[in-house]
Amino acid sequence: MSITMTTSTANEPLDMGFSALRAAYQAGTTTPESVMAGIRERAAEYVDHNIWIHLLTQSEQSRWLDGLKDKDLATHPLWGIPFAIKDNIDLAGIPTTAGCEAFRYVPESSAKVVQQLVDAGAIPVGKTNLDQFATGLNGTRSPFGACHNAFDYDYISGGSSSGSAVSVALGLASFSLGTDTAGSGRVPACFNNLVGVKPTIGLLSATGLVPACRSLDCITIFAYNTDDANIALAASEGFDIHDGYSRENPYDNQARQYGLRTGSLTVGVIAQHQLKFFGDKGYEKAYMATLEKLSAEGFVFQEIDYAPFDEIAQLLYEGPWVAERYIATQPLIDDNPDAIFPVVREIIAPGGKPPATNLFKAQYRINALKQICLAQMANLDCLLTPTAGRHFTVAEMLAEPIKHNSELGYYTNFMNLIDLASIAVPTTLTEAGMPFGITLVGPTFSDRMLMSIANRIQQAMPLKKGALESMATPTNALPVKSATRIEVMVCGAHLSGQPLNWQLTERGASLVEKTTTAAMYRMHLLAGGPPLRPGLLLDKNNGQAIEVEVWSVPSENFGSFVAGIPAPLGIGKVTLIDGRQVSGFICEPYGFDDTQDITQFGGWRDYLASRNES
Amino acid sequence: MSITMTTSTANEPLDMGFSALRAAYQAGTTTPESVMAGIRERAAEYVDHNIWIHLLTQSEQSRWLDGLKDKDLATHPLWGIPFAIKDNIDLAGIPTTAGCEAFRYVPESSAKVVQQLVDAGAIPVGKTNLDQFATGLNGTRSPFGACHNAFDYDYISGGSSSGSAVSVALGLASFSLGTDTAGSGRVPACFNNLVGVKPTIGLLSATGLVPACRSLDCITIFAYNTDDANIALAASEGFDIHDGYSRENPYDNQARQYGLRTGSLTVGVIAQHQLKFFGDKGYEKAYMATLEKLSAEGFVFQEIDYAPFDEIAQLLYEGPWVAERYIATQPLIDDNPDAIFPVVREIIAPGGKPPATNLFKAQYRINALKQICLAQMANLDCLLTPTAGRHFTVAEMLAEPIKHNSELGYYTNFMNLIDLASIAVPTTLTEAGMPFGITLVGPTFSDRMLMSIANRIQQAMPLKKGALESMATPTNALPVKSATRIEVMVCGAHLSGQPLNWQLTERGASLVEKTTTAAMYRMHLLAGGPPLRPGLLLDKNNGQAIEVEVWSVPSENFGSFVAGIPAPLGIGKVTLIDGRQVSGFICEPYGFDDTQDITQFGGWRDYLASRNES
Repeated sequence: MSITMTTSTANEPLDMGFSALRAAYQAGTTTPESVMAGIRERAAEYVDHNIWIHLLTQSEQSRWLDGLKDKDLATHPLWGIPFAIKDNIDLAGIPTTAGCEAFRYVPESSAKVVQQLVDAGAIPVGKTNLDQFATGLNGTRSPFGACHNAFDYDYISGGSSSGSAVSVALGLASFSLGTDTAGSGRVPACFNNLVGVKPTIGLLSATGLVPACRSLDCITIFAYNTDDANIALAASEGFDIHDGYSRENPYDNQARQYGLRTGSLTVGVIAQHQLKFFGDKGYEKAYMATLEKLSAEGFVFQEIDYAPFDEIAQLLYEGPWVAERYIATQPLIDDNPDAIFPVVREIIAPGGKPPATNLFKAQYRINALKQICLAQMANLDCLLTPTAGRHFTVAEMLAEPIKHNSELGYYTNFMNLIDLASIAVPTTLTEAGMPFGITLVGPTFSDRMLMSIANRIQQAMPLKKGALESMATPTNALPVKSATRIEVMVCGAHLSGQPLNWQLTERGASLVEKTTTAAMYRMHLLAGGPPLRPGLLLDKNNGQAIEVEVWSVPSENFGSFVAGIPAPLGIGKVTLIDGRQVSGFICEPYGFDDTQDITQFGGWRDYLASRNES
Repeated sequence: MSITMTTSTANEPLDMGFSALRAAYQAGTTTPESVMAGIRERAAEYVDHNIWIHLLTQSEQSRWLDGLKDKDLATHPLWGIPFAIKDNIDLAGIPTTAGCEAFRYVPESSAKVVQQLVDAGAIPVGKTNLDQFATGLNGTRSPFGACHNAFDYDYISGGSSSGSAVSVALGLASFSLGTDTAGSGRVPACFNNLVGVKPTIGLLSATGLVPACRSLDCITIFAYNTDDANIALAASEGFDIHDGYSRENPYDNQARQYGLRTGSLTVGVIAQHQLKFFGDKGYEKAYMATLEKLSAEGFVFQEIDYAPFDEIAQLLYEGPWVAERYIATQPLIDDNPDAIFPVVREIIAPGGKPPATNLFKAQYRINALKQICLAQMANLDCLLTPTAGRHFTVAEMLAEPIKHNSELGYYTNFMNLIDLASIAVPTTLTEAGMPFGITLVGPTFSDRMLMSIANRIQQAMPLKKGALESMATPTNALPVKSATRIEVMVCGAHLSGQPLNWQLTERGASLVEKTTTAAMYRMHLLAGGPPLRPGLLLDKNNGQAIEVEVWSVPSENFGSFVAGIPAPLGIGKVTLIDGRQVSGFICEPYGFDDTQDITQFGGWRDYLASRNES
């Protein structure tokens, strides 16, 4: 086995991004073996950070490296890409501890998500430190030692997915798996300058994950940017019949639609008086600077009332969901409570007590609040919040472990209780040079849309990769529209106020703009009716600009709209005056037999008006 | 006020169906006032049946009758239609008791569903008897007396929506509202020869409903046939932000798609050895006769394993959901338990005890089982089960109230715990002349699809309206396809095995048939590619039949498929060899400029083969 240099040389900063590694593998300038050896070498320098519970030895790792021989780099999107695994997710043959020695077991098989990543060519580096049983958002609640921040040893890493975030930020892995129940996949992303993807519950299988709150847990992804995160997400996701919370993604077909979200965005932000930074002026300034920058980028901000979100957030730690943590740690919590880290034990121990009535009452209240939250989000592209309000030092955290942990969850705890998707995005460094980031929040299965907005934010606010020197800016610039809506050009009976407009409005469609086609169409009055209908005929030489409307239809309702259109009309592509091609009404050739050319009216409304006059 | 005869005369059987009443109103042969007076008159004959807790007096009813003066019959689908309301659903100004005098209150406003029905012109007749707090499936658990069956006084009515079913069956209302947590909207439909619609949870608002199990409750509809049920459902449904369990129906746009479900249907039935009739030979025979008849009608039956459904069913009454009933009856159950009907008290009283851990464990188990159930249903049009396995007499029921009630739920209890839609349909009378029916079961929001299949069953197995003499056969015969899938004709690069076929398969599409177009198309090779693409040109004089495939695409994924098609192609309507019009590829006129006519090959595959040969 050839142990050569890693991708970093004396002249070149270390770049653990997917494209840099793939390029190096392709060029033959390095090998996965060499990259892994370099990681182990550098990991030795960070032993005091308490990143790993189990860093794989060369021999433990060899079976995955050997597996690459049967895989083609070109067809395996993660070929040779090193990844870290939070130690509450199974890796076959390697102990899982969930941060508790007494809980340790050696799983026979890997978690489904881990197996999918390995199948795509990714190489496990090791199992990472965490707040024990994923109970915490800070990274200090581990008998394996507090995990320290990648930027400043005195600061907390965030948790509970502490080691997973810090390993990527320090270049000891290219991406990592965390988990997120209350914010564990987002807070550490914020504190270590990473993207943190908190997928919709059930998008990634939870088979092989030690539960925290089984009904709320998600496996998450830390990466340097949305390009890498999207590749890892695509390899990780998928329905799993063996996971009761797994769901088919109705937008699966749009997996390819990750890209740069262009155009005007309307984004909800928390009303000023409801923002909390818990005395962290650096974070407050960084948040304001982020909004300012994004505002200049074309983001339009609209204040929302955070009170219902906050009430939900409080129900998570103060309500009966602790019963799930109790179930997850039984029988240990009953029979050997001293084996559990003190602050974690203190939280979990009462979990057997609340009655089912309390849980039902809390669920009723959350459902009522959810309706209010979703109504506020209905006309927004997404919400945007600080990911965390304050970055504590390790000393501060240990002094007030419960209070500060609760403060860390102010912007994160509500998410899984009301089934939302979110992504943490780094946006700037504080004046002190510490990472800060925001979280984008969208409805169930809006994951790819959020990822595309995050791409735009990363392009607008370029930062380095974690604590490394190379830039993280995503390169994917394929413009995409919202994955959940389709724009359609209408020119006749479907225009606002016309007799078939209800076919759009009853599908939740909204008017985007009144515009014209490119100056290359002729309009004919088709045979038949009522209602009367026009047909557009592309004629590059003699066409004109025709007045039309563009409507935005929820993607899931567009199919039935199309299916309801009678011959000779149909939906194809139409070019607008600004050069955009959108879906729109087209007409079969025979439809133009014996029709009246009404192009001179410039649009359907003026043609109808002329009929009424005559 | 003119009190004339009701629609029933000496020569003509009483017909309380919507269309008969509307026709009579339109013809002026009766008035709503007269119909209501007739109902009160006939109700007096059935006092011993214990149908009503509160039958409205003429003066109480007058405000709704007066309201009709401002409403136009033509635009109000329920104008003058009398309906009964289960007494756990609020009617403004009239007491709600939920079957318990000590619980009685007078609501200021009507339940949202009731208000919507009134707005559509429906007239409340009264509040109906029920198993107290909707706790039961049999109709004997009421301090207002056991409710008796419409066909035979000795038999149970079914429950808990007892009076609502019996009132319609006896022609004292044209439809009624029940509720359904465990089967209360289906079992009484079966025992009284009615259609019973158990909508998807959240399709109808639960605002103004006294909860049984708040997380599972649905308001339901009893009617004579699917035509009437669909009209009542359309008037009742809709999102309600004030109900935490209310949901937008993603198929709302297809509300008009109720009709007669035609074509071959693949229907899941319970494996023979898992059927239970609890000794009721009449019901067993009736069920077998139903399958036989439907088999002759073109239904294809496929056995499913009922074990996971049954395990879920048992969790409902034996598991922690009783905590919800406890919450719903507090503080009465704590402070004044003697005010509660003994058998109901016995069931509810322990509800404060189970811990939240039990509830979470039960939810985990149910979610795991749900995956297995849904997988079994994935390739079926619906499931079909007996609605109940045995029809007990009142005496039998009272002798073993808990055991027999549990037997009544064998086919019904699982439904709401795994978020399914269902509809009970009467199919035949037993040899003893008692009603029997089956229940159709489908996934979340499959309500209209089930209603359309039920329509077909009612047409195939005609019966009278409830216990009346007029026929119930629905007249709506508009053929509809599954509301959740759209058929699309493909003829080129999307054919099986061709380069763009993945755009169908990744959307969950399946091949329906290989066929040809009607003999009126010409096929051209379009410019551009790869991939190469053909265009179909309708030419009635010189066209031929072209080999094509029909694929069935989930409706919610069809829109993105259409949006991804580049110009000059699009999706319009294409006529197949059997005369059917389906969605399919069309091409704009300019797309045929300078193309090669390849009609002579008869299809795309043969054309491609010819290229390879040459």
